[in-house]
Amino acid sequence: MENYLKTYVEYRKKIKAYGYFVWLMSWDQETEAPDASVEYRTKQYQVLAEEFYKIESAPEYLEAVDYLFAHLDEIDDKDLKVEIKQAEKALRMVKKVPKDELLEYQVLTSQASHVWSKAKNENNFSMYQPTLEKIFVFNRKLVKYLETDELKGYDILLDMFEEGFTQKEYNLFFNTLKEKLVPFVKEVTAKKDKFSRKLTKGVFPREKQKQFSEYLIDVFAYDRTRGLLKESAHPFTSGVTSTDTRITTHYYENNLTSSIFSSIHEMGHALYEIQNDPKYDDTFLHGGTSLGIHESQSRMYENMFGRSKAFWTVHYPKLQEIFNKELKGITLDEFVAFVNKSERSLIRVEADELTYALHIMIRYEIEKELIDGKLKVKDLPKRWNKLYYDYLGIRPKTDKEGVLQDIHWSGGAIGYFPTYALGSAYAAQIYQAMNKDLNIEEALLNNNIKAINAWTKEHIHKFASSKTPKEILMIATKEAFNPMYYVDYLKNKYQR
Amino acid sequence: MENYLKTYVEYRKKIKAYGYFVWLMSWDQETEAPDASVEYRTKQYQVLAEEFYKIESAPEYLEAVDYLFAHLDEIDDKDLKVEIKQAEKALRMVKKVPKDELLEYQVLTSQASHVWSKAKNENNFSMYQPTLEKIFVFNRKLVKYLETDELKGYDILLDMFEEGFTQKEYNLFFNTLKEKLVPFVKEVTAKKDKFSRKLTKGVFPREKQKQFSEYLIDVFAYDRTRGLLKESAHPFTSGVTSTDTRITTHYYENNLTSSIFSSIHEMGHALYEIQNDPKYDDTFLHGGTSLGIHESQSRMYENMFGRSKAFWTVHYPKLQEIFNKELKGITLDEFVAFVNKSERSLIRVEADELTYALHIMIRYEIEKELIDGKLKVKDLPKRWNKLYYDYLGIRPKTDKEGVLQDIHWSGGAIGYFPTYALGSAYAAQIYQAMNKDLNIEEALLNNNIKAINAWTKEHIHKFASSKTPKEILMIATKEAFNPMYYVDYLKNKYQR
Repeated sequence: MENYLKTYVEYRKKIKAYGYFVWLMSWDQETEAPDASVEYRTKQYQVLAEEFYKIESAPEYLEAVDYLFAHLDEIDDKDLKVEIKQAEKALRMVKKVPKDELLEYQVLTSQASHVWSKAKNENNFSMYQPTLEKIFVFNRKLVKYLETDELKGYDILLDMFEEGFTQKEYNLFFNTLKEKLVPFVKEVTAKKDKFSRKLTKGVFPREKQKQFSEYLIDVFAYDRTRGLLKESAHPFTSGVTSTDTRITTHYYENNLTSSIFSSIHEMGHALYEIQNDPKYDDTFLHGGTSLGIHESQSRMYENMFGRSKAFWTVHYPKLQEIFNKELKGITLDEFVAFVNKSERSLIRVEADELTYALHIMIRYEIEKELIDGKLKVKDLPKRWNKLYYDYLGIRPKTDKEGVLQDIHWSGGAIGYFPTYALGSAYAAQIYQAMNKDLNIEEALLNNNIKAINAWTKEHIHKFASSKTPKEILMIATKEAFNPMYYVDYLKNKYQR
Repeated sequence: MENYLKTYVEYRKKIKAYGYFVWLMSWDQETEAPDASVEYRTKQYQVLAEEFYKIESAPEYLEAVDYLFAHLDEIDDKDLKVEIKQAEKALRMVKKVPKDELLEYQVLTSQASHVWSKAKNENNFSMYQPTLEKIFVFNRKLVKYLETDELKGYDILLDMFEEGFTQKEYNLFFNTLKEKLVPFVKEVTAKKDKFSRKLTKGVFPREKQKQFSEYLIDVFAYDRTRGLLKESAHPFTSGVTSTDTRITTHYYENNLTSSIFSSIHEMGHALYEIQNDPKYDDTFLHGGTSLGIHESQSRMYENMFGRSKAFWTVHYPKLQEIFNKELKGITLDEFVAFVNKSERSLIRVEADELTYALHIMIRYEIEKELIDGKLKVKDLPKRWNKLYYDYLGIRPKTDKEGVLQDIHWSGGAIGYFPTYALGSAYAAQIYQAMNKDLNIEEALLNNNIKAINAWTKEHIHKFASSKTPKEILMIATKEAFNPMYYVDYLKNKYQR
């Protein structure tokens, strides 16, 4: 036992160190590495990735994990128990899937995003179809390899991204949305709001947007000694430890609010990892417990705090001070209405809060049908367009603004989309629980986001991934997942 | 033979990959890593450094290098021959110095900069003295271990930093300076220039300085797809391949010219490595051949091109356009005189072009005496102050502005300083040679720095470190090192 534990800890240390290199390289690549450097960097990466793989798949390490997993009851440390369980689960793929099939699939997905990107640019689904078919063929085989008494089919994939959430939970969730939200969305989006041309057609200088994002860092108490804000093509959060979790944003001069809300969104993600208990830094438990819980934090900070009238009551004067010319004459109420407007659209990443989950619901149904074999990849565009018409009342004119819009499937991420919608729904439930302990509106009006951060730390963040999403929800809200909080939140917000 | 070559290439690939990680980590650390991240990063670094060391000191690798070195005449590839020679030389330390002494010294020097920094802050030499004594004791032993028939004593250290340059060359060099330059400096610096308060007491906004440095990138054709300009506490160049060589600068709002000339200086370094023949990227030969040649490029670009009247004739209008208020009424001539002023000072890093080499000469004499055992560390401050008085006519009032000012010795860099002065002297000689092929003044007046870059590439840069400094000098100038070019350059420039 002692020897296995020692081996485990030794390997964990090395795996974390190589993981650190991969993290840093990718951060550099996404934010500033010069264009011509890609070839050299890829070569160095390949050499170290090979060393990394040797360590991760060392028989000595696999044996240690197996032994410890078989003797979990002899381990007292609760966190270590959780960690061993997760390590064993993560290694299942390596052990159960034939190595050549796995390698073939890795090559396939590493090349698929190029194929996808080209097909999207040329609005040509049939170019992408053969690749996508292979990806789904593999995933249908994969779920067979990983099948257990408890989990089968699409559930295996769903559970990989959000532990404990399978079709049972998601069907309940999406059926609720279908029943309560679909008619409501049609009603709300039938009327179109009008806003000042200053907001819709203005030019908002980059440097001023930057200044406001820097101001937001202090407002949200995103610790500058543990993170930083930089620019990249698409905003993201990239963390490696509670002492180093960085974010990016992107400034569009024709869009004032994009950088504001992406900065807040990413700070929500970053606060989660910065507020992880530092005792997890050297373990595999550092980080968020799931994509859904992670997204609940980013969306709660962005939408529920960041788009609230209380928030802008305090911070709109600062925004107007910086954009003194650009926002002249725009009232607080008009600005708040503008950042909370709703509109049906075809593109998921441009969707507003109200309609976002419906975009996800469409992808969920399609993934389910593809994995079950009820839908063929070649029939995908037709099915996609029909669902958009059924749920959102609009129909893509091209596959580019339809089934070709997302990169995810090309990377093999099937079962991932549903966590996005779950995040927003979790957020609504968590908000209500928090509001019982703490008057959120008052905290926002007092510019006391530290009090909010203290709550999220205590009830969610500090646990890192030592608890499952269901456990976190129970700790934070004292009840199981209930999608009605989300429906109520949206209805309450968008009711006119 | 074939097997040894294969082994060598395999190890080289790995060593380059780990080297890439060390490079990237250090770049991140010096430019943006959040303060609190240092502990975690250091831990990951230690784990990978251990793996790195295992590879670099693997018996299989050492054996391959030894074999190839012993059979150099069987190797046809000229570059590979040079590389093997260099690898063998680099490994001599590992092989000839007892491992425990080497490790002890590494620990000593890794901690010494803290001791130095504290002693400097508190202006307390005796705090630093015991550490510095140990460093010199080791280096006196080191030169014994590495002694050959050709090289002994201080020469070993000098040759480590600038191959082929030993006391013979340096004595000739510094004696020339002593004879020709010391009286001249005293004469020139006796008169003090007066400049507009706009230049000496102005405030120059950071953003505007940044704008001008960005402008300079295009002027010097520093390829943005192969590098980038960022900020750090002290300016530096950090390159890892011809496709990735980055620079930093630092903006002081009370000093307009600091960021300008440090940007040009670092671009001189960066152009050298970017213009290395890319065939060296995957070998140990990528990079500059020596500190001296590297410094010759940075100083030639900074001082000889960047401070010339021809250069500012073209670019001063742009500078005035950006600093329209701050430079109003300052003429081109006044600005050029200002950036070429000379003044005696106690601090090396603040020294101007004329007096810089004298600061170095002092350190050279002191290092020689310490390694020879003629001078004791405890007598260092007295000796230091006397030499400053003899050569520059000024005397430090405190050790902080005297012997404690430089970090170098604390890191074990003994024999390093002289290369700084050599760089300037090389630059003067190279400039004259270049001027025979190319009218430099005309090129500068035509804003045609590309022509200059093409010359430096063809005669210096493309060779990377496949030639020794002496060989490079011979290729570029068709003669051996001659310090009189430097003396003439300075006399010509500072004669009034």
